Amino acid sequence: MHAEILSIGTELLMGELVDTNSSYLASELAKLGIEVRWVTKVGDDPDRLFEAIDRASKRSDVTLTSGGLGPTSDDLTRETIARVCGEKMAVQDDLLEHLRGLFANRGFPMPETNVKQATLIPSAQAIANPMGTAPGWWVERDEGIIVAMPGPPREIQRMWAYEVSPRLKARNPGIAIVTRNLKTFGISEGGLDEMLSTLFKSENPLLGIYSKQDGIHLRAIATASTDDEASALIAPMEAEIRRIIGDDAIWGEDDETPESKAVALLRDEGLTLGVIEAFTGGLLCNNLTEVAAHDAVLNGGAAASGRDALARLGVSAALIDKHGAASAEAAEDMARAAREMFGADVGVGISPLALESADGRVVAGTSFIGYSMDGRSDSTSGHYPTRRLRIRGRAVTHALLGLIRFLRCQSLQGPTLRR
Amino acid sequence: MHAEILSIGTELLMGELVDTNSSYLASELAKLGIEVRWVTKVGDDPDRLFEAIDRASKRSDVTLTSGGLGPTSDDLTRETIARVCGEKMAVQDDLLEHLRGLFANRGFPMPETNVKQATLIPSAQAIANPMGTAPGWWVERDEGIIVAMPGPPREIQRMWAYEVSPRLKARNPGIAIVTRNLKTFGISEGGLDEMLSTLFKSENPLLGIYSKQDGIHLRAIATASTDDEASALIAPMEAEIRRIIGDDAIWGEDDETPESKAVALLRDEGLTLGVIEAFTGGLLCNNLTEVAAHDAVLNGGAAASGRDALARLGVSAALIDKHGAASAEAAEDMARAAREMFGADVGVGISPLALESADGRVVAGTSFIGYSMDGRSDSTSGHYPTRRLRIRGRAVTHALLGLIRFLRCQSLQGPTLRR
Repeated sequence: MHAEILSIGTELLMGELVDTNSSYLASELAKLGIEVRWVTKVGDDPDRLFEAIDRASKRSDVTLTSGGLGPTSDDLTRETIARVCGEKMAVQDDLLEHLRGLFANRGFPMPETNVKQATLIPSAQAIANPMGTAPGWWVERDEGIIVAMPGPPREIQRMWAYEVSPRLKARNPGIAIVTRNLKTFGISEGGLDEMLSTLFKSENPLLGIYSKQDGIHLRAIATASTDDEASALIAPMEAEIRRIIGDDAIWGEDDETPESKAVALLRDEGLTLGVIEAFTGGLLCNNLTEVAAHDAVLNGGAAASGRDALARLGVSAALIDKHGAASAEAAEDMARAAREMFGADVGVGISPLALESADGRVVAGTSFIGYSMDGRSDSTSGHYPTRRLRIRGRAVTHALLGLIRFLRCQSLQGPTLRR
Repeated sequence: MHAEILSIGTELLMGELVDTNSSYLASELAKLGIEVRWVTKVGDDPDRLFEAIDRASKRSDVTLTSGGLGPTSDDLTRETIARVCGEKMAVQDDLLEHLRGLFANRGFPMPETNVKQATLIPSAQAIANPMGTAPGWWVERDEGIIVAMPGPPREIQRMWAYEVSPRLKARNPGIAIVTRNLKTFGISEGGLDEMLSTLFKSENPLLGIYSKQDGIHLRAIATASTDDEASALIAPMEAEIRRIIGDDAIWGEDDETPESKAVALLRDEGLTLGVIEAFTGGLLCNNLTEVAAHDAVLNGGAAASGRDALARLGVSAALIDKHGAASAEAAEDMARAAREMFGADVGVGISPLALESADGRVVAGTSFIGYSMDGRSDSTSGHYPTRRLRIRGRAVTHALLGLIRFLRCQSLQGPTLRR
């Protein structure tokens, strides 16, 4: 089964809006084992839209469209599918009643232009859209399936997950795909490649290796006729990977992020965290606050980079004067100050970027990351060539992976702390 | 002149990589007055790639491709363009010498597979790529122009800006497009629509109105035969807009962001800033550190949300107990505490989100934003339904636009401060 995605809307061709729907759908289709062969963006032009949908419906088993289901005369997806199918649109009483109800609930009358959102053609069924006014269309003919979905990401993602994905999965019976992603640190890509060389020869599950910002990922993909069978294929491979590289080299699994993992570890240990950031300017703290459960563990964070500003936060000015703010000593003292400032069990400090290296000791562009906990402290360093968000994001990832390692080491030593 | 964009690479169809090149190129082409009619993503499949390039070259004046110029057997863009043109690829001595030089500089020999990056067909000229090993191809035939560019964003953006855009501009002589974007606050979209109704009837310059997160934007686009003529068309319209809505309703122009404008205003006034954030968890501080010139004005920021953590930062616990942390009083006191904590002239405080409104005074989901400067303080509030990054980004934008307004008011009052 192979699919084609059409993203519809002139604004996509003006570069004003980045089309995220097509990559969302592409990654979701991959999970169903459906190959995506084409993605096309086309504007609200009747003839070009016809050309695109007509060609897609002829060459692909499934055509998925996003956008063009609104009420205005620019929204042409329904009309064009009707033209491709050679069928007539007719207003459906039940859809119209539902639509009028939505407007009534919002307290104003439905504009007449919205009526077309209550139409279908004979080959189409309506797909519920609880997030908006436009239902989708599921069009099924001998030539293949056309699924029309709305453009706003929250509408299309809800419709995909609850309505479209289950129906397509049912059309593709006997194919279950299960993936397992192990996220590693501390061993190079080449090292893992060598250690796991036998496993890379396996065809099902297929093992892939991916170098990501948060470490080297090992992803196993198994295909079978049921989810259970696919999972059963993956289990022995995972056990073998863990045996060979060791659990210590794996910091997280599947959807875990360095942020979510660090918060989970702290929460499991009943520890609180404070951070002081120089180079990363608040990004570490901000990223941690995106984890749902951060409230219980993140006491607070501060960002400053000048000597005096850092001293005001409780960092030792004498230590900065002696070693420089971009030093392991300062980073560890920032971590200590972060604990004290926020009354936290664990502190993380990210030093400013070293700007020059007159004495040859520190390479320009180096930032130091310090960790502190109850009398114990440690630090790492990384090289960050620019201040751009992506580069600072890398430093934040390093700080979090370092924290995970620091917490694990700590917990090995203290009898009250679990692994 | 109309164009078509092809993004090439199987990874784009797997949803693993979001295609940002096509929206970059689309917005750049719009600036040249070249209409984009189609964007297609296609994988590294020889026949589908042939179908895509062949169709594009027949129906579009200009076909722009990104990706598929690497050295591996999966990289098929050159081979496919040669097939579409019915021409043979031949190694170019000068390109090969240059390529070997690049590898020699990196200190290792060139793999033989890279030789194909030194080939051309008779209709193609090489386009320099100082950011990578693969030169682009400029293919010119009676049927139209095909431009092949590399996939990595920094390579394609450099090549576009320095090589491709100037050549395409020269092909489209007598068309110069100048845009002017005025970013407003304080007047609703409907209000602006009414105040400027006469101007919206103008066809050249064409005036558009766009509701964005950082306010309502008024964008004038003028087309003429030279940039000077186009600018001359825009100037009287801009003057008329400013006369009607007033300069106070315009916070920024063109590429200015709330962050860059706030930093510029502070720098112009010689003022420093400190912030304490609860709801936004460090995002305001982080966004400010992305502005190149922030060092001179941003003394520091802190993020915390609990009563005790805020008290530790110098916020009055008595005041929080009396009014709640989610209150105008607390936000203004956070702003004062931010000034003191970071020794800054101006402070901004963003309160926690009100979680419930038992007494009916504060609506759940409200956050208060306080400003403080030398004895004067003020606050605003906004409604933020969730903690998602996008919503917190909205609060940060509100805080910055409020800061711009606060600084302007302040500067109206103090004789030493310029407008």
